[in-house]
Amino acid sequence: MAKEAPYLWFNEPPIDYDIYRFAVKSFLYDGQTEFQRVVILDTFEYGRMLVLDGFAQSSEKDEYIFHEALVHPTMVTHGDPRDVLIIGGGEGATLREVLAHGSVERLVMVDLDRELVEICKEHLPEWHQGKFDDPKVELVFEDGKQYVERCESMFDVIIIDLQDPLDEDSPAAALYTERFYASVRQRLRPGGLLVVQAMELSATNDLEGDDHLMVRNRLMKVFSTVRSYLVFVPTFQSEWAFVVASDGPDPASLTREQIEEGLSRQGTPEGRDLGKSLSFYDADAHIRMFTLSRDLKRFLAGLPPTEYGAR
Amino acid sequence: MAKEAPYLWFNEPPIDYDIYRFAVKSFLYDGQTEFQRVVILDTFEYGRMLVLDGFAQSSEKDEYIFHEALVHPTMVTHGDPRDVLIIGGGEGATLREVLAHGSVERLVMVDLDRELVEICKEHLPEWHQGKFDDPKVELVFEDGKQYVERCESMFDVIIIDLQDPLDEDSPAAALYTERFYASVRQRLRPGGLLVVQAMELSATNDLEGDDHLMVRNRLMKVFSTVRSYLVFVPTFQSEWAFVVASDGPDPASLTREQIEEGLSRQGTPEGRDLGKSLSFYDADAHIRMFTLSRDLKRFLAGLPPTEYGAR
Amino acid sequence: MAKEAPYLWFNEPPIDYDIYRFAVKSFLYDGQTEFQRVVILDTFEYGRMLVLDGFAQSSEKDEYIFHEALVHPTMVTHGDPRDVLIIGGGEGATLREVLAHGSVERLVMVDLDRELVEICKEHLPEWHQGKFDDPKVELVFEDGKQYVERCESMFDVIIIDLQDPLDEDSPAAALYTERFYASVRQRLRPGGLLVVQAMELSATNDLEGDDHLMVRNRLMKVFSTVRSYLVFVPTFQSEWAFVVASDGPDPASLTREQIEEGLSRQGTPEGRDLGKSLSFYDADAHIRMFTLSRDLKRFLAGLPPTEYGAR
Amino acid sequence: MAKEAPYLWFNEPPIDYDIYRFAVKSFLYDGQTEFQRVVILDTFEYGRMLVLDGFAQSSEKDEYIFHEALVHPTMVTHGDPRDVLIIGGGEGATLREVLAHGSVERLVMVDLDRELVEICKEHLPEWHQGKFDDPKVELVFEDGKQYVERCESMFDVIIIDLQDPLDEDSPAAALYTERFYASVRQRLRPGGLLVVQAMELSATNDLEGDDHLMVRNRLMKVFSTVRSYLVFVPTFQSEWAFVVASDGPDPASLTREQIEEGLSRQGTPEGRDLGKSLSFYDADAHIRMFTLSRDLKRFLAGLPPTEYGAR
Repeated sequence: MAKEAPYLWFNEPPIDYDIYRFAVKSFLYDGQTEFQRVVILDTFEYGRMLVLDGFAQSSEKDEYIFHEALVHPTMVTHGDPRDVLIIGGGEGATLREVLAHGSVERLVMVDLDRELVEICKEHLPEWHQGKFDDPKVELVFEDGKQYVERCESMFDVIIIDLQDPLDEDSPAAALYTERFYASVRQRLRPGGLLVVQAMELSATNDLEGDDHLMVRNRLMKVFSTVRSYLVFVPTFQSEWAFVVASDGPDPASLTREQIEEGLSRQGTPEGRDLGKSLSFYDADAHIRMFTLSRDLKRFLAGLPPTEYGAR
Repeated sequence: MAKEAPYLWFNEPPIDYDIYRFAVKSFLYDGQTEFQRVVILDTFEYGRMLVLDGFAQSSEKDEYIFHEALVHPTMVTHGDPRDVLIIGGGEGATLREVLAHGSVERLVMVDLDRELVEICKEHLPEWHQGKFDDPKVELVFEDGKQYVERCESMFDVIIIDLQDPLDEDSPAAALYTERFYASVRQRLRPGGLLVVQAMELSATNDLEGDDHLMVRNRLMKVFSTVRSYLVFVPTFQSEWAFVVASDGPDPASLTREQIEEGLSRQGTPEGRDLGKSLSFYDADAHIRMFTLSRDLKRFLAGLPPTEYGAR
Repeated sequence: MAKEAPYLWFNEPPIDYDIYRFAVKSFLYDGQTEFQRVVILDTFEYGRMLVLDGFAQSSEKDEYIFHEALVHPTMVTHGDPRDVLIIGGGEGATLREVLAHGSVERLVMVDLDRELVEICKEHLPEWHQGKFDDPKVELVFEDGKQYVERCESMFDVIIIDLQDPLDEDSPAAALYTERFYASVRQRLRPGGLLVVQAMELSATNDLEGDDHLMVRNRLMKVFSTVRSYLVFVPTFQSEWAFVVASDGPDPASLTREQIEEGLSRQGTPEGRDLGKSLSFYDADAHIRMFTLSRDLKRFLAGLPPTEYGAR
Repeated sequence: MAKEAPYLWFNEPPIDYDIYRFAVKSFLYDGQTEFQRVVILDTFEYGRMLVLDGFAQSSEKDEYIFHEALVHPTMVTHGDPRDVLIIGGGEGATLREVLAHGSVERLVMVDLDRELVEICKEHLPEWHQGKFDDPKVELVFEDGKQYVERCESMFDVIIIDLQDPLDEDSPAAALYTERFYASVRQRLRPGGLLVVQAMELSATNDLEGDDHLMVRNRLMKVFSTVRSYLVFVPTFQSEWAFVVASDGPDPASLTREQIEEGLSRQGTPEGRDLGKSLSFYDADAHIRMFTLSRDLKRFLAGLPPTEYGAR
């Protein structure tokens, strides 16, 4: 028996039905902040992983997919984002991706949980890469709803990177309401865009009570252009969805050439071609994410996929 | 405790590392053919599932994604497939999707395991939908390699729908060799295409020994145009890949309009628009599957994804 | 990967906390009777196993321990049991052990579920060994409570071999009441004994709500002599308890010599020494089962084990 | 979802077959000493648990059963143990139980792994209860075999409390040999006894290669009186065995009265009745442990249990 044989495990609760279980090499951190239990573990397959209240947030091996997919489509669609607001995003990887854009002048990140950010700073350097200390960054430890309501600044891009609203009583639930989205809209400059991490999306899910549809439908009451897009994230064993909402440009209408030109023009803070320095995102990734199969389009429209028998 | 609380489970072996475990409602079939152990189980999340020698082949809930993704891109790229050969495909769902095309005049399906086909006929009617009895179908129970080598017919489309080649000793291994692909090429008419189910594909896998790269690279030695494409299949908790190979048309160059026109022209045997009767596949699905993100393109080229730190 | 590598599993629900998971070779039976779901599976470690509504009842490898422990202490304590009543015991193994005693003239077995008995007859021959057809046996398919209340026969030994009373609403719950025990007492001849399978017993359990204590305490209200005894059963991963209740002889007071003499005198139907033909039970087994450690005696008296710190 | 819902788990490797999985509240310690990986976790069902190289050693809830069963039968059989040697026993609980005897004047504990003892001192106070600092205790950090071979002291009782000899290459393997047992015998005074923790014992195990039989048979080559005894330990989900070996008194022949008188006479260091201050052990516990059922006696004699069909 090699000493490396796994005997420690993590799986998301509940475990009544299908279970995906991660083999754990070792436990790096286990603590309780004022708001949540924080566990950082080192897994055999995905490297380090951040777990909040039992739910995997991101892992070393593929967080680049999640965070590039969250940030770049909206940033590129905008074309020249200078002021960016992140609500949530405690790991610091969303912030890292935003700062990869040469145009950014000011980045406000609002997270409720100061202790979580301190823990991530110490234990997840691959996520934030020291960018919390970038002079463009303004860290605010406050409830996102309260911040948005009292805020007088205007932003080009707003990114909502929160935990799933597990139930109506969870602290994050107020940040998934139509009312909150309307407040956010007040803080967008003309041509500004909002992007929201919006849970798993699958045409094989039940339509009723689907979390993604809930977010999408609420955003459609507030914004004129709302686009779902999705990408496979191995850690989540599913295709993960995001929603871009705006009263301005439409990310689904960008051509391959526009995206490539935008990445090149936008550049990095050092003046290099942003398109050459990313891992996941490029024009093809953008097009793949916004191009959805027949069953998914029907699902988003509230229809079941065509039954084969109906041919 | 509701009687429905799960207490029966299935997971693919081995279980040393990360495990995905399916909750099982009931066991519908468990038997051993001359070639393999066949288990059919009814799962809570995915409905009926076919398991061969411990490995999930397809499930009721999402086999439509797998089988439409396997069949239609190649059939549509060809434009007028009349003679089609399926190697493997015991469940009958690949056959079902091929027969959805109005142009098909003859369909030969070669599977080694007659008993498996009988079991699927009885227990998986949603898969085959009675199409084994279609007069266009010729069922051959023989080793695929032997059939191809002795065969004198020519085909427009050949579909290889086999189990993964678990190791060099497995019976399927001889059907994943460069030599076999060269034999297959001899059976393709000018303009003909081959499509192969080609395992999981992920840029976060280890480059070494990746099964998809092995299939892709062997096909590249035999055919002038080789395209990997991939789609998320929930039952497999991963993006599943296929490879189209030909010396003729390139599925990656089709426009949205060409695909839609093709589906309409091709039609169903009853003369309806094929594009209106499918569940998963349409022009967007085609484009999504053949459009790969930066990390995947680098992976297929044998390069690691760009490291963020290299920016 | 050997084809024998386990990929099918069984565990008792619920699975919120500690889980023991059995690797399953194959599923032999899965059906629903009027009263319960019956699954018979072939496990790697324990051979065939009977599972009712998700709960393991007994397994091929160690059912001899459970059933000999259930039957023989009471039969030997009685000394000359002629008429025996079994309530439950659908597998037929309790019946088998009773019929091993040469003195038995009449054996009534009352089980609610005729279909279960038919299934066990067909699939569990090692359990019943054809004894359902012994001419001394009278099978009654009826609710045990109803049978006892309408019954006019008298018995020397009554054996209650039922599933655990999972909650107050389960069908078996009425057979675990003080009132039912009082009815049973009416059917015992002078010197007669009752034995009840009485769940797991461990001094490390919580005193509050312990199922064994509940059965024991109810029996103590009805009978003058009540003895808990327990034996380790591997399939249950715990020490399993039984309670003998009577107004006559006390099984805990038998000497090694009395037990050995009893087994020899009692004999088998063929006139051999019963003590030489059993697998688990003998005088030592009897003494071990009725001799309890300090913590268990304190637990049965409603006290916590002595804390070490209290020394 | 309550925050207490389990999502962290421990199970002993390997996990090919039957698995017992513990739900884990939190991880208290995870580190590597020179000799082994040490994990201390807090479980929902058993409280704190010490895990060495993946194998559970003991848990807060029932370590009292294991350690009282290991120590007291031999100490009481001796009658007046003054000098005691423990080989292994890093947790400090074996030491604690030895020191509960008023007669003890000198206790030598030899453990290879100084770091392990330091970790247990800090994290497992319920185990050692500060007794490492008792002036009678002499701690030696050295290989047990080397210590015994170089040692010139004589002992009344020697206790071997080591990890299982997982294979012939494991560091503990040399401490399970006939040769080592012969060295140990040289260190016993006349009337002295050796007790060895001797793994799981079950008549349903395979005779071939059984670890307990291996230890027992080797001891029988060295000592004239060898007794196996066993007790159920919930954390191990099995009956755990020990072997007492001596050329003097026989623990299996003690009467209830002799044991009770011995506990009273022996007393505690404070002069109280030892029988009144223990949690698990008393005369009944002693008798239960040394009294084995028919199948176990046959197993220890190298015979299979009587087959029912052989009646």
